[in-house]
Amino acid sequence: MDGLRVNADRLWDSLMELARIGGTPKGGVCRLTLTETDRQGRDTFIHWARDAGLAVRVDGIGNIFARREGADAAAAPVVIGSHLDSQPSGGKFDGAYGVMAGLEVVRTLNDARVTTRVPLEVAAWTNEEGSRYVPTMMGSGVFSGVYALDYALAQQDSDGISVRTALEAIGYAGDAKPHAVGAYFEAHIEQGPVLEATGTTIGVVQGALGQRWFDVVITGQDSHAGPTPMETRRDALLAASRLVLEVNRIATTSPDYARGTVGSMQVKPNSRNVVPGEARMTVDFRNAKDPTLIAMVDELKRRAAAIATECRVTIDLREVVYFAPSEFAPELVASVRSAAGALGYSHRDIVSGAAHDAVYLSRVAPTAMVFVPCKGGISHNEIESAKPEDVAAGCNVLLQAVLARAGT
Amino acid sequence: MDGLRVNADRLWDSLMELARIGGTPKGGVCRLTLTETDRQGRDTFIHWARDAGLAVRVDGIGNIFARREGADAAAAPVVIGSHLDSQPSGGKFDGAYGVMAGLEVVRTLNDARVTTRVPLEVAAWTNEEGSRYVPTMMGSGVFSGVYALDYALAQQDSDGISVRTALEAIGYAGDAKPHAVGAYFEAHIEQGPVLEATGTTIGVVQGALGQRWFDVVITGQDSHAGPTPMETRRDALLAASRLVLEVNRIATTSPDYARGTVGSMQVKPNSRNVVPGEARMTVDFRNAKDPTLIAMVDELKRRAAAIATECRVTIDLREVVYFAPSEFAPELVASVRSAAGALGYSHRDIVSGAAHDAVYLSRVAPTAMVFVPCKGGISHNEIESAKPEDVAAGCNVLLQAVLARAGT
Repeated sequence: MDGLRVNADRLWDSLMELARIGGTPKGGVCRLTLTETDRQGRDTFIHWARDAGLAVRVDGIGNIFARREGADAAAAPVVIGSHLDSQPSGGKFDGAYGVMAGLEVVRTLNDARVTTRVPLEVAAWTNEEGSRYVPTMMGSGVFSGVYALDYALAQQDSDGISVRTALEAIGYAGDAKPHAVGAYFEAHIEQGPVLEATGTTIGVVQGALGQRWFDVVITGQDSHAGPTPMETRRDALLAASRLVLEVNRIATTSPDYARGTVGSMQVKPNSRNVVPGEARMTVDFRNAKDPTLIAMVDELKRRAAAIATECRVTIDLREVVYFAPSEFAPELVASVRSAAGALGYSHRDIVSGAAHDAVYLSRVAPTAMVFVPCKGGISHNEIESAKPEDVAAGCNVLLQAVLARAGT
Repeated sequence: MDGLRVNADRLWDSLMELARIGGTPKGGVCRLTLTETDRQGRDTFIHWARDAGLAVRVDGIGNIFARREGADAAAAPVVIGSHLDSQPSGGKFDGAYGVMAGLEVVRTLNDARVTTRVPLEVAAWTNEEGSRYVPTMMGSGVFSGVYALDYALAQQDSDGISVRTALEAIGYAGDAKPHAVGAYFEAHIEQGPVLEATGTTIGVVQGALGQRWFDVVITGQDSHAGPTPMETRRDALLAASRLVLEVNRIATTSPDYARGTVGSMQVKPNSRNVVPGEARMTVDFRNAKDPTLIAMVDELKRRAAAIATECRVTIDLREVVYFAPSEFAPELVASVRSAAGALGYSHRDIVSGAAHDAVYLSRVAPTAMVFVPCKGGISHNEIESAKPEDVAAGCNVLLQAVLARAGT
């Protein structure tokens, strides 16, 4: 099977045809979960899957499983998947690539008349993006037992429409029960700049960074910019700015792929000649290792306490999100690496800075991911772009890694 | 005349009665310029001025001059004044105190049957606050030749109503021509914390800080907080935060009453898991000496250029306001100081961090100001507060300094 290659043109054409559903004038995609365009995307995928001889099931949260039988029908399947929904101003590749790559693996095996020992399933998970409904990664979260089905179905969008109602409206409220997964593979664009910047074709994903998110409220005292001497001020923005520098310093000096971001900042009263009495900001810390992530937060809290004293303000840090770091299955990660090497692609170990459906699947099955470069590292944007040869390379790696796991 | 004292109760009662016009439930005042409440405030002042035997004139921008003749009718008058308009959520003292103190000086001279050599005028300047119409200090600016009358009359509020229309609507479009001013005195609450914090009754105002205001736009590149390594980021908020610290450092380490404030900050896209690609902020630098103010700005520009390079962003600094520092007339400042000393009040030299009508008047006449403490240094706020004994003390200093200048 080592000589087997996917059909690069067919894979690219499928991606481009899918991108026409919800396609935007700027070349992006708007296919919000559980909308009419999402239904069209799902229908198209199912149409293609049935053409490839796959049996389609839909579960209670609308996850789609397209199954190709194996020699051992009782074995837990190897699942290959990602998501078909997009951001409001999304691109052609985020999510869609992983589903179409799974379909191309199956089509390639059909062409070569290969029967794997273990059954294969191509999965499309509901609402990965979280743009219309929170929480994100809803479908994979329900499948993996992170969220109860009823909880997910009860979530409402900004118009008050529940997930349950929206699923029924597009005809994707299924009845398939959760089932065992023998292994899970997901191909995805990197959504970051590392592969492109290093001229690397394949990212061998070790896992996903853990995340700890905070809301921070800094309270000082408004005062007039003119009459108030510097030494009597209680400037909330000055304290906030010092904290921004600490977040950056901690992330820059910590090991294990540490990242630290202040993405949001608001000050009050936000008037040019008034010393700000309040500043609200966020902190997003990420790390591949939980102990390092904890150490980063501890250091931030120590520095915040010192800044509060020195600036004579109060600083309230409230944790709003905690995802533990995910480490993918070493044997599957190794098979991705050796497939890339055998195929002659440049490759490097990488971690996923963002969460993916694979993060939740890794809780219930051995999991690995394959990254390919995207232009400028840009994603969640209509200009998101990837090269056909990279897209094909990632799919070839996926094919070989799946074959290694599923057996022939 | 050294034994002459103002009537503290009458002064306080006038202030409190005036504060009922546009009075707010929280004890503040909303008397926006050229509104019906402003008309009522003006009418009340004119009624009291005529009761005190003063002759009232109104000029083309609505400034009111209430004149008490002197022995030498041809001499340029000593003018005592401030403004009757308030911020939307203003207090009882900002502006009103200076006008009522001028009226109380005249009433006290009437009671004592004193005729000064030089005529006295109590002035109420139009639109000092700038809340409804910009520019601020419009009336004193027109009177002093800073703004052309037609320019000021053409300004519009947010409803498209011009100053000219609003003046005519309240009956205050007068025809008095500009006239010479022999000297100008203004009493005001400090609007800062220094007098209260040092237990001082009288601030002998040396002048007003110069101001240079900037709009700053910092442009980096949006990127995902997860997948983007720290070393590849172009974080606009990180650069902005470093600039906030520089503004503070420069102001803290510069002489001559240096102040530096970043009052406003906005980031884009302002999403907690996106590295900000843009930050907009303001800088407000103030100093008593123009060369020091210039040096502060030069230093800021040097540091901004270094930060732009280090953070790989662009930083655009655009100057939007420049007021030169004002130095008040030494002989008048000395008379305020000696009056405070002779009256036995604690006093200290101080500079005005904010601009006042006196800043513009100082361009056309020898000028001085008298500051009294306000509670917590708070102004432009409904909880603005001052003690009756301090209000009276400031008025007694004003009386003695005016008498020293006007002669008897």
